[in-house]
Amino acid sequence: MATNLIHIDPDSTESLQSQIRNKLVEGILVGSFPPNTKLPSSRKLAKQLNVSRNTIVLVYQALMDEGYIITKQRSGIFVSEHINTGRVKNLPSSSNHSLITPDKTTNNIQYRFKGAIAKTYEVACPYNWRRYAYPFIDGKFDASLYPIKEWREANNRANASGEIYQWSGLQGLQDDPMLLDEIRSKILPRRGIQASQDEILITVGTQQALHLITQLFVDSSVNVAVEEPGYPEMRELLLQQGANLVYQPLDDQGLVINNKLDDCDIIYTTPSHQTPTSITMSMARRDQLLQQAKQHNSLIIEDDFEFESNFLGQPHPALRSLDKNNRVVYVSCLSKVLAAGVQIAFIVADKQVIQALKKIRKMIMRHPPIMNQRAVAYFLSLGYYDSFMMQLHKVFFERWLELREALNIYLPNCIDTGPIQGGTAYWITGPSRLDGEYLREKAAEQGILIEPIKRYFASSEHPANCFRMGITSLPSDKIRAGVKKLADLIHQLTAEFEEKLSNAKGSLLTGDALTNMLTGAVLECQMVYGVECIIELLNNGTMRGRTGGKDSEIDSGRWWIENDIYYRQWNLWGYGEVKGFYIIMDGQQMKWFDLNYCLVRQLKCLEKPSHGKNS
Amino acid sequence: MATNLIHIDPDSTESLQSQIRNKLVEGILVGSFPPNTKLPSSRKLAKQLNVSRNTIVLVYQALMDEGYIITKQRSGIFVSEHINTGRVKNLPSSSNHSLITPDKTTNNIQYRFKGAIAKTYEVACPYNWRRYAYPFIDGKFDASLYPIKEWREANNRANASGEIYQWSGLQGLQDDPMLLDEIRSKILPRRGIQASQDEILITVGTQQALHLITQLFVDSSVNVAVEEPGYPEMRELLLQQGANLVYQPLDDQGLVINNKLDDCDIIYTTPSHQTPTSITMSMARRDQLLQQAKQHNSLIIEDDFEFESNFLGQPHPALRSLDKNNRVVYVSCLSKVLAAGVQIAFIVADKQVIQALKKIRKMIMRHPPIMNQRAVAYFLSLGYYDSFMMQLHKVFFERWLELREALNIYLPNCIDTGPIQGGTAYWITGPSRLDGEYLREKAAEQGILIEPIKRYFASSEHPANCFRMGITSLPSDKIRAGVKKLADLIHQLTAEFEEKLSNAKGSLLTGDALTNMLTGAVLECQMVYGVECIIELLNNGTMRGRTGGKDSEIDSGRWWIENDIYYRQWNLWGYGEVKGFYIIMDGQQMKWFDLNYCLVRQLKCLEKPSHGKNS
Repeated sequence: MATNLIHIDPDSTESLQSQIRNKLVEGILVGSFPPNTKLPSSRKLAKQLNVSRNTIVLVYQALMDEGYIITKQRSGIFVSEHINTGRVKNLPSSSNHSLITPDKTTNNIQYRFKGAIAKTYEVACPYNWRRYAYPFIDGKFDASLYPIKEWREANNRANASGEIYQWSGLQGLQDDPMLLDEIRSKILPRRGIQASQDEILITVGTQQALHLITQLFVDSSVNVAVEEPGYPEMRELLLQQGANLVYQPLDDQGLVINNKLDDCDIIYTTPSHQTPTSITMSMARRDQLLQQAKQHNSLIIEDDFEFESNFLGQPHPALRSLDKNNRVVYVSCLSKVLAAGVQIAFIVADKQVIQALKKIRKMIMRHPPIMNQRAVAYFLSLGYYDSFMMQLHKVFFERWLELREALNIYLPNCIDTGPIQGGTAYWITGPSRLDGEYLREKAAEQGILIEPIKRYFASSEHPANCFRMGITSLPSDKIRAGVKKLADLIHQLTAEFEEKLSNAKGSLLTGDALTNMLTGAVLECQMVYGVECIIELLNNGTMRGRTGGKDSEIDSGRWWIENDIYYRQWNLWGYGEVKGFYIIMDGQQMKWFDLNYCLVRQLKCLEKPSHGKNS
Repeated sequence: MATNLIHIDPDSTESLQSQIRNKLVEGILVGSFPPNTKLPSSRKLAKQLNVSRNTIVLVYQALMDEGYIITKQRSGIFVSEHINTGRVKNLPSSSNHSLITPDKTTNNIQYRFKGAIAKTYEVACPYNWRRYAYPFIDGKFDASLYPIKEWREANNRANASGEIYQWSGLQGLQDDPMLLDEIRSKILPRRGIQASQDEILITVGTQQALHLITQLFVDSSVNVAVEEPGYPEMRELLLQQGANLVYQPLDDQGLVINNKLDDCDIIYTTPSHQTPTSITMSMARRDQLLQQAKQHNSLIIEDDFEFESNFLGQPHPALRSLDKNNRVVYVSCLSKVLAAGVQIAFIVADKQVIQALKKIRKMIMRHPPIMNQRAVAYFLSLGYYDSFMMQLHKVFFERWLELREALNIYLPNCIDTGPIQGGTAYWITGPSRLDGEYLREKAAEQGILIEPIKRYFASSEHPANCFRMGITSLPSDKIRAGVKKLADLIHQLTAEFEEKLSNAKGSLLTGDALTNMLTGAVLECQMVYGVECIIELLNNGTMRGRTGGKDSEIDSGRWWIENDIYYRQWNLWGYGEVKGFYIIMDGQQMKWFDLNYCLVRQLKCLEKPSHGKNS
């Protein structure tokens, strides 16, 4: 008997007993120890493997309980002959499909394909994204984010014997009532939504929720408004159903409401954080949209997929919660972090809609795995969801600020992220001459992953100088270094188009002229995220700064002049580092060039409060 | 502070610590303890709840780690003010949809429904089936069948931190490579199938597998052969895609092959155990079907959903394994017992087919939950699947024999189950005058659930006297009592049509005539499951019996005559009980009437081996 196949790994974290058991089972299953093979006695095997006899006795006992081996009186221990029960006796001699010559008519099976097969969109990131040092990819998650201990506990509770007994009795159309109740009482109130159990449907991820909704409401007679740029997978679901799409633009308040919407039966929108721009729909726009829908009898599909990442100001209530006419079909999920593994999302809508969606779901896949439903229900009921959301909010907010800060420091006067209030990705407009796709390739070579944006555009050409950077997949302390490398690359790619000290319009300030201009100056510049910053250079060599926007910040620092170069050091801003600039005045505009002679900022000189005092 | 809301249940199985933690979290989340509320000191709360101070210290520590509470130096412990981070501030005043007057146009939302909504088929069993004493329902499972310990271990391995790190990085189109490999090496060989990883697709249950396949291959230009009676949910999927259905009859070898199939692009079949009749397709028929498909260039969809319940004889290889031309798209699942909770099934087909199905799946729901895939992969790799299948096979076989035996004993000469070799349900043809639907209602009133069969028929009228009985949902020791009750009910419902001793054709045997007829007699009767049984009544008062069929049985016993009644007692058969009969001869046919004067068996008298010896 080939028990010498059993090799024990002394460094394994598995117990000896478990190792030996698994090797024996493997041997039995692959046929190394065929049915009726006599196994060595526990004493003999223990000696052979140099382990205690008790270990082997316990292993044999377990294998006996499991039916792998049997004892025959007075003759010893044998591999069970029932090991192959229910198996086909012999493999047919040549079922290896690739080795045989297929007949010609079926060689290419594609002629049989009738259904709408998804176009393959460019993949947003490579398979092995974890190997990249700086994966600025939205929707992938670094391992530190998983609430492993809490999730395991919830999962274990769902798999306790009493629980399995309970949930395994549920029927095909039914969702887990425990989960429905937890969603109703713990998730929906966060979004201002009240719902009863029969107004909620559980789905396998948000994609399935959207698929079911399009199955129910959309055919070729239906006009559907979608955001442009917008979520490509929803566009494709709608097109597969034959919908007539109306591409609706966005402004900084979200989806634009105009008369193009009047003929739309359905309006699909992502108001929390628009996909892909992260713009949050304003309250005024929400009211306007609901008014529009009421006037023109439209249904709204609200895809509220990232409500946990509202960072600046209080989040707005969901459209569903503001709607008085039952016009909103609401889609959301637990949290994207958990979603990948358990794939639980949900729809909130009118009872009749839920009932109809259930019947469609039944034909498509019966119901989402009940074990997952129950595990998520426990995750919620134990309060882990709330504490997890608090933690995620904290971590994402920190990363989000870190990325904004780094972009602002390393790429001022160069990019624009817009005044967004949250979300887990920035939509970045680079220098007008930048080729975003080329940048993406070059960045990847240096270990930096950024997201292409072409796939979000359908009716219009995508802006070549835009790209996206997400924060879910890399820790805060990597962000600065990643952005610095990316900034160097962008400067390198656009160097020939950048303004240099040598060819700058205006005149270089030196000596007293420089001192006079700066002392007591009040300067205004734009942050890359769309708010202004006011800097006061006081005559005592200190300075003060204040940014605008919802999360207005202040800082102070010191400034001085040395060799006709203006130096400054903030206490907190700019990583508290000393930085020097050449100053050129071009009318009222002041330009700062770094010590590599590159333009880094353009500022407006405001009135000095008491001009001339120090002159 | 309303800490008096915290009530400790001394009988709970939860630890004190866990109870107190959960009550506090609940209070915080529902707002009983709002943000910034000061909590009592650990000493005070311990005293109040009459628990040790350590318990409270540990609870507070956990809540602090989770972010629910904070300590402020020198002032104590407070509910965190970040508790509402990411929540909508106030619920909108009246979002209760049911309280407001809906506008007329949307009151009935159904006018918006466009998609094909499933017809609601009659439900095979009531929601609370577990409350019935005798649930002969196929596909529901009694709790004793769940491999709880093994499943939990597999699940825990899948949720270890290293694992989550690994599987959470998988992309949308990808299945878990570990699961693919386990299916390839541990499940498919049981069915004689060889496949590489790219020939396998994971789905959320078999229903999704069938849905994806119909999406890919079926539109209104396609003719599809289905079994009649057959699986109604597949029929509906096909009809939704616009298929032209060809209803193909069955015989005792399975799907009938005739020229109606010649024009079929696709043939859908359930060869392991036909749904709903449990007929296993013979090897000859399998070859014939593959030949037919090759000749007429048809694709075969093989739904192999119950391969673990082959009881008599070796299971036949799957069609996919016999197919030399890559014409078979194979669908199967783990085991129905596990399926309900984790919903993992799979498709095996040509690479190109799998690739196309993946793209459709992506649009419909991205991918099956990866956690479930990995958990199932561990269940397989640890060998638990094999040992579980062995156990299931044993348990189901035992129940299957028990049910067959009970039907044979309590309903001889009355029903027919056909000569099936396995499966988890019997298709039962009752007395011709029986109304199966009425029987089902009456039986349910007595705690017995049997399955209606109307839903399996599409092109033809369903036979009114048929019903189905399954074995997956009740333990072996309940089967006899359930069948006895059901038999009493059937006799009661059909009493007026049954042959009675009083109106029987033929003549009642008494005295010497009876003794002469029986002594040395060789009798042949039919078992309800379609095999004959030969009984020899020896002249020494003993008897011998032997059944035909694949699992031929023998038994012996004794017989005697008392007051013109024939008594017999088998050692094993008939539960070893004494039973008496009146005997009537009608030509060569012998009829047995029980002591209630009801006909229970008709037997053929064969030649006595040495007739006359004892006369």
